[in-house]
Amino acid sequence: MLNFDFYAPTRIIFGKDTENEIGALLKPHAKKVLLHYGGGSIKKSGLYDRVTAALKASGIAFVELGGVKPNPRLSLAHEGIALCRKEEVDLILAVGGGSVIDSAKAIAMGVYYDGDVWDMYHDGRPIEKAVPVATILTIPAAGSESSGDTVITNEEKALKYGYGSPHLRPLLSIMNPELFFTLPKEQLGYGVADMMSHIFERYFTNTTNTDLTDGLCEATLKTLMKNALPAKENMSDYNAWAELGFAGTVAHNGLLGMGREQDWACHDMEHELSAIYDVPHGAGLAVVTPGWMQHVYKENVGMFVQFAVNVMGVEASFRDPDAIVQEGIRRLREFFVKLGLPATLSELGIGEDRLEEMAKKATKAAFGNERPLGGLKPLYWQDVLAIYNLVK
Amino acid sequence: MLNFDFYAPTRIIFGKDTENEIGALLKPHAKKVLLHYGGGSIKKSGLYDRVTAALKASGIAFVELGGVKPNPRLSLAHEGIALCRKEEVDLILAVGGGSVIDSAKAIAMGVYYDGDVWDMYHDGRPIEKAVPVATILTIPAAGSESSGDTVITNEEKALKYGYGSPHLRPLLSIMNPELFFTLPKEQLGYGVADMMSHIFERYFTNTTNTDLTDGLCEATLKTLMKNALPAKENMSDYNAWAELGFAGTVAHNGLLGMGREQDWACHDMEHELSAIYDVPHGAGLAVVTPGWMQHVYKENVGMFVQFAVNVMGVEASFRDPDAIVQEGIRRLREFFVKLGLPATLSELGIGEDRLEEMAKKATKAAFGNERPLGGLKPLYWQDVLAIYNLVK
Repeated sequence: MLNFDFYAPTRIIFGKDTENEIGALLKPHAKKVLLHYGGGSIKKSGLYDRVTAALKASGIAFVELGGVKPNPRLSLAHEGIALCRKEEVDLILAVGGGSVIDSAKAIAMGVYYDGDVWDMYHDGRPIEKAVPVATILTIPAAGSESSGDTVITNEEKALKYGYGSPHLRPLLSIMNPELFFTLPKEQLGYGVADMMSHIFERYFTNTTNTDLTDGLCEATLKTLMKNALPAKENMSDYNAWAELGFAGTVAHNGLLGMGREQDWACHDMEHELSAIYDVPHGAGLAVVTPGWMQHVYKENVGMFVQFAVNVMGVEASFRDPDAIVQEGIRRLREFFVKLGLPATLSELGIGEDRLEEMAKKATKAAFGNERPLGGLKPLYWQDVLAIYNLVK
Repeated sequence: MLNFDFYAPTRIIFGKDTENEIGALLKPHAKKVLLHYGGGSIKKSGLYDRVTAALKASGIAFVELGGVKPNPRLSLAHEGIALCRKEEVDLILAVGGGSVIDSAKAIAMGVYYDGDVWDMYHDGRPIEKAVPVATILTIPAAGSESSGDTVITNEEKALKYGYGSPHLRPLLSIMNPELFFTLPKEQLGYGVADMMSHIFERYFTNTTNTDLTDGLCEATLKTLMKNALPAKENMSDYNAWAELGFAGTVAHNGLLGMGREQDWACHDMEHELSAIYDVPHGAGLAVVTPGWMQHVYKENVGMFVQFAVNVMGVEASFRDPDAIVQEGIRRLREFFVKLGLPATLSELGIGEDRLEEMAKKATKAAFGNERPLGGLKPLYWQDVLAIYNLVK
């Protein structure tokens, strides 16, 4: 186990009707909030009315900025930063999924920065403070409701970069599984693939003596796999959504990666797909991940046997580790397909013509500054291209 | 799954040499601290010197209060409260195990309360604030380094009561597994029994649809059981202690009990033993817990079969649930004995003469105000007496 520093102060208020508590919860922290959201779905569902009623009942003023799109745009964050400054907002309330929350975090740190907030994403520049963010989660997937991470797409440059800071951990997050009932069915699959990937990125490691986090990762993965198909079958299954939502938060608050060298190559490879083709993040991950496993598993066969046996339920025959790993990967791909997720780049509408460009951008080789991706096995642009080709 | 509110803001700094960072870590939070500790062990080991050097290097002034005993005493907390007021201390640094940290928390809330801090323990009176507490953990057991809980013994009244508040969650806790190498060997067993009990109290529940926390509980229990005997074999086994220490914090920061009705009868029954006979808390728990399981399991056989199969590795034969449960309890008792823990009250030097008195005190029947213990099965004083008799 490696030394670590764990800090996950976000308060999680979980369960039925909890969104109605938002006014009382924010009252000690804010006089005026920016209500940040996506398209019209929170207005159609009535959530917007409940949230604004709760704010008004607690005497909290608010201004609004809607219009966040999946793969949230830098330009809207710029707009939010200007609005927060002008209106002297003291808290940002993100009502939505990961895109809305990530956009809120970009605004939150941009308010206190004189330059372009893109500098943080581009240069990893540290921040000293940010406007507090609270969230009401409507899509369990990104884990942004309890993480200090944010991902933004610079649409002018077709670049999608991530950034993280403890100052971006939300103050509190409300999670009512009933809010997930009305999601489009494909969002379920995207979300589950994203949540599983957050665990995979931490789980697959060369660090040894990691019993506790191995076990916590495996338990969380199994919970996601057990409950995903029932939720898909019946989109109003409260219990299944409760498990998925809670698991999504545990998957990404940092705990499962403590003391382990982490990977994150699949996220980096997927970000290139989304930046150029604007595909859903979870769909891209479902395609890339099994290819990544195939390409890297020989680096640490024991780790992948453990995954196949402890997570995918493959029988541990002990004599043929490669066969066990192959069966584990096959079952994962099969699970994703059952969830309605794509298995190939071509299903995502991604042809072969820009694979090399994406491989070189992902590794920054395109910018003359190559940094291999991943932790378990360092991936150069040729590796990334090989993985894209495995799943084309 | 029940609605829940999860808040565990304590920052955990984990690993080799981390105690030397204490000055830098506290610098933004404190000008003058109360250094609170137990007997002389931190002086003998050199830890005291390293900690005070780190404080001095960061220009943090300190006053000292040593002398905390296992089952920490109210009278010493009174002394600490007076000292903190007189010296205008703005943070309490607890260097020790659960007793030292619990004592620090009593002081922390007492400083801001005009009456006797015992009122909180006795009446459950809520608090609005407390002096911040930081910890350097020397015994993995109580989980107090990441919880908002404290237990104090009123030695005049021979009462041992607990209290909890979010305001008592430590600001930060340092955990260096190397500090555990010099513990007396019996402390290992006491600690493991305590940590396992913190999970049992949350795990055994009648709440259904608890996949995630079931799995997290089971993974943490298995980690403790896997690493306890290797650490006992070689008290300098860093990796084993790292797992035990990390698991002990996860066991008690609240996560594993979220969305579940919890139990806590074994802790309440043990507190009576410690209050009167001053036995080590973990030793008392090792005795009481298998008796409790035996007395209550028929209330929820499925839960105990799950425990036997998923945690204790009993084969799931499906046809005879009682036999599976019995084998699970037998294996748990056997594990405790291997760790050097007692299996009966008589091994703790507790005779039969005061069992009824303790049963009536534990349930408050002795005070004409009976409140049954537990969640899985409500225990009246007759039940508690029956359990004591099962393990006498």
